Amino acid sequence: TQHWVLSFSCVDQPGIVHAISGAVVDAGGNITESQQFSSDDTGRFFMRLQVLSPATRDELEATLRPVAERYEMSWKLDIVGRRIRTLLLASTAQHCVNDLLFRARGGQLPIDVPLILANHPTLSDLASFYGVPFEHKPVTGPDSKAAFEDRIREVIAEHNIELVVLARYMQILSPELCEELSGKAINIHHSFLPGFKGANPYKQAHQRGVKLIGATAHFVTTDLDEGPIIEQDVARVDHSRTPAELVALGQDEESRALRRAVTWFAENRILLDGDRTIIFQ
Amino acid sequence: TQHWVLSFSCVDQPGIVHAISGAVVDAGGNITESQQFSSDDTGRFFMRLQVLSPATRDELEATLRPVAERYEMSWKLDIVGRRIRTLLLASTAQHCVNDLLFRARGGQLPIDVPLILANHPTLSDLASFYGVPFEHKPVTGPDSKAAFEDRIREVIAEHNIELVVLARYMQILSPELCEELSGKAINIHHSFLPGFKGANPYKQAHQRGVKLIGATAHFVTTDLDEGPIIEQDVARVDHSRTPAELVALGQDEESRALRRAVTWFAENRILLDGDRTIIFQ
Amino acid sequence: TQHWVLSFSCVDQPGIVHAISGAVVDAGGNITESQQFSSDDTGRFFMRLQVLSPATRDELEATLRPVAERYEMSWKLDIVGRRIRTLLLASTAQHCVNDLLFRARGGQLPIDVPLILANHPTLSDLASFYGVPFEHKPVTGPDSKAAFEDRIREVIAEHNIELVVLARYMQILSPELCEELSGKAINIHHSFLPGFKGANPYKQAHQRGVKLIGATAHFVTTDLDEGPIIEQDVARVDHSRTPAELVALGQDEESRALRRAVTWFAENRILLDGDRTIIFQ
Amino acid sequence: TQHWVLSFSCVDQPGIVHAISGAVVDAGGNITESQQFSSDDTGRFFMRLQVLSPATRDELEATLRPVAERYEMSWKLDIVGRRIRTLLLASTAQHCVNDLLFRARGGQLPIDVPLILANHPTLSDLASFYGVPFEHKPVTGPDSKAAFEDRIREVIAEHNIELVVLARYMQILSPELCEELSGKAINIHHSFLPGFKGANPYKQAHQRGVKLIGATAHFVTTDLDEGPIIEQDVARVDHSRTPAELVALGQDEESRALRRAVTWFAENRILLDGDRTIIFQ
Repeated sequence: TQHWVLSFSCVDQPGIVHAISGAVVDAGGNITESQQFSSDDTGRFFMRLQVLSPATRDELEATLRPVAERYEMSWKLDIVGRRIRTLLLASTAQHCVNDLLFRARGGQLPIDVPLILANHPTLSDLASFYGVPFEHKPVTGPDSKAAFEDRIREVIAEHNIELVVLARYMQILSPELCEELSGKAINIHHSFLPGFKGANPYKQAHQRGVKLIGATAHFVTTDLDEGPIIEQDVARVDHSRTPAELVALGQDEESRALRRAVTWFAENRILLDGDRTIIFQ
Repeated sequence: TQHWVLSFSCVDQPGIVHAISGAVVDAGGNITESQQFSSDDTGRFFMRLQVLSPATRDELEATLRPVAERYEMSWKLDIVGRRIRTLLLASTAQHCVNDLLFRARGGQLPIDVPLILANHPTLSDLASFYGVPFEHKPVTGPDSKAAFEDRIREVIAEHNIELVVLARYMQILSPELCEELSGKAINIHHSFLPGFKGANPYKQAHQRGVKLIGATAHFVTTDLDEGPIIEQDVARVDHSRTPAELVALGQDEESRALRRAVTWFAENRILLDGDRTIIFQ
Repeated sequence: TQHWVLSFSCVDQPGIVHAISGAVVDAGGNITESQQFSSDDTGRFFMRLQVLSPATRDELEATLRPVAERYEMSWKLDIVGRRIRTLLLASTAQHCVNDLLFRARGGQLPIDVPLILANHPTLSDLASFYGVPFEHKPVTGPDSKAAFEDRIREVIAEHNIELVVLARYMQILSPELCEELSGKAINIHHSFLPGFKGANPYKQAHQRGVKLIGATAHFVTTDLDEGPIIEQDVARVDHSRTPAELVALGQDEESRALRRAVTWFAENRILLDGDRTIIFQ
Repeated sequence: TQHWVLSFSCVDQPGIVHAISGAVVDAGGNITESQQFSSDDTGRFFMRLQVLSPATRDELEATLRPVAERYEMSWKLDIVGRRIRTLLLASTAQHCVNDLLFRARGGQLPIDVPLILANHPTLSDLASFYGVPFEHKPVTGPDSKAAFEDRIREVIAEHNIELVVLARYMQILSPELCEELSGKAINIHHSFLPGFKGANPYKQAHQRGVKLIGATAHFVTTDLDEGPIIEQDVARVDHSRTPAELVALGQDEESRALRRAVTWFAENRILLDGDRTIIFQ
């Protein structure tokens, strides 16, 4: 018996839950967890199931396909706990990469990282401690940036990458690459979006005198810092904090927000409803 | 078309979701919200549905009853947003009563309060501002306590009370009454249980030097401060706070925790799994 | 013996604390609470003291004035716990006004409210329950707006108003009045500034799909939603919340952020460091 | 010019701040940060100062000593940012050790760790990655436990250890060693004390059905889980979490609470007021 995770989305209408649960019964499955949401904004239906079933993947797909076709669903079938092949893009900051690798090694974050690709060599030691291959290619202008992005494409193809994580990568991806990675690249921005977009958000936060600083994990889109938000976290600060202290304090929120976003992606808990995310926790 | 809320619990086994959703389809219903949980601790299945259906209550019950009987379910059918008839027990503290009545009047908390019963006259003005009948009976010894509890029973019968809220009532109910109210009386305790049970929890918290104070909303049971926990909330404090300041600060957490517990009860979001609560938010 | 609160700000330089504490000793005072901050941004020194002293106000002022003059200080002397004369401006929303009046009546918020001035009659009952005079003047165009603002000025003069609180007043004050009220008018904005300025912030928040909603209490300035931030608060939300539910949920954060800002103002805990606030908690 | 940190405690009486600030002026110092607290519980005065001064340590001590003696103060003079010599005691859990070493290496946590002493070899790799000497000695019975504690004493003497951190060490220290380490050993307990003392707190938390889990950093005393609390942190959980998931979730709160406690200790921000801690943030 295997533990499966299923997700579905389609135009909402009566009978969908019954049709899906009927297919699950037909496949000898028992639903152990289920969540559903109908969006008033888009009129779409979203569902995530975990199912125990002795059926093979082919059998399950054969049973579910007619339902999926009848309702013109986007759907996905996966195994609970399968490690998602993940490419980390990094620069010099260590905290997010360290947090992700620490939890991946401890078995709390179901990802496999075949490579860390960075534009600086700084994290080489960290990668080697965690036994993760590390490669660095400087990005100093348009040509080296294009070469870096080509290398991203190669790695994705070579390792069947399912998720790209910009773990404080600090470079803006080209519109073309953003398009190619649509829905499978997650960035961590070091502010509570939509406040303080762009560069130096902690400096902006200090100048504005905010009482809470934050971090936002979001899907990468061509529109900078505007992609669908997956998770946000904040920490209380006061007047005595310098911009440098805000940077240090915010690392915790960045690590946590990014880690949760990656975990939910790996567990197939994130569905897209237009520009908004549905998170089935 | 009516918006219905359904909740079910029974021994877990395959096919339950399909059977329930089939009955919903048969009743011409569309599921707008659904949550399910299977408890590893007790082996029980729990489900909450919101369903749009043109069927009458009788038709819905007729369609669902066979499913409920087949799986030996506890189940409940109600109308989304129906106001629950609620008796408030109070003493001298105003914050919880004020918070509940303020939100009930504003339409954010679906309860009707036919009476506030208190052992002190203090809240008479507050009740009258909100247009809620108020009655006070002193509790000064065993006899007056028994009389107070008899009055509770009368009010419950007379007004078909569905929920009793001890809004800082500060008296311990007799074991008999606790039994009678099992699963339908909610108390707010002014500490983060299981820490600081009993009297003067803020004084205890000050002496122990905790850095967070809290409040706990729980079902009333014969075992004092040990009933199933529904909601908890905390606030950060520091060394400079006196016990009196902790009392003042904690009022906010008490009000919020109690309000959420009452809201979830009124929305049929709380199910009991042994001594633990399932909260379907 | 009286409990005094003192606050000072001036250009930072060595010896200020010694000079101030010397004056306190000369006035027979004992410091019970003290906080100090030197701003790297502006080079200014800020201090707040609570002092027990048998001296009269005149004696204290005579002792402190030479120190204040030597360092060219802005300074203030007040009695701990004195109730600040506060004008509330309101519209139709009740939660902030209710929260402030509830705590003022309970003695937890040291303000006296001689009048609520509103552009709608909605809160008349609420005001009368708390025994606070209520007056409403419609604001429907430039003339009635000017008349409303003239009435604000009259009330301020007549009642020696020290603080004006825009408790969800929902009208933009004229630049002239903003200037006149500089540093003594607090507004609550229903978003986590600087995100979602202007109208309908919860609708904006829903569209953007944020995972935390917030509220910001700030001093009123001519630059809308850009005044110095005093306090911010957030609450976690998820995809299932409609804009209307965000409005309801956010009321709690609005009430709390505004209440804290008003409390700190009344306790002389807020000092201005350019466009940023120093909060001595 | 050096940046100094000073802390004082003594029986409260008028004139202390003036006496201290006078000595600071005499030493050519400028106060950049100051906090003070007078305890109603014990009648004691507490102060922490940061001072810029060109004086040598000997000069500063000579200037301050007469004040300290006049008021019979406990006092301490240190350099801001000096790294505290810290011994980590560990077992098999990695998260707290990793968190402390990551931040120590990044310069955010002012500690030097000359040795990790563990009763299991598990963390050897982690220690070596961070370049920290690692030693393990099994603890399997009274004799090996006594040997382990003797080794602790040796290391303390040899490396002039100022702080011992039990980073999920999971062994109870002998009363003798608790006494010896009084006020300089910090433990992290994996519950929100005083709830769930002793072993398996997450299992207890699951059984009790709490809605928030927590962690508590406290000074080690002979009375198990009863030492002065330094910091606490909580995370929201729901009914769906298994005890194993609570363990995983709680690691973040454990790491954060312990890290903050160690940081504050290293920055001389913790003073003891009987069984309670004063934290000058």
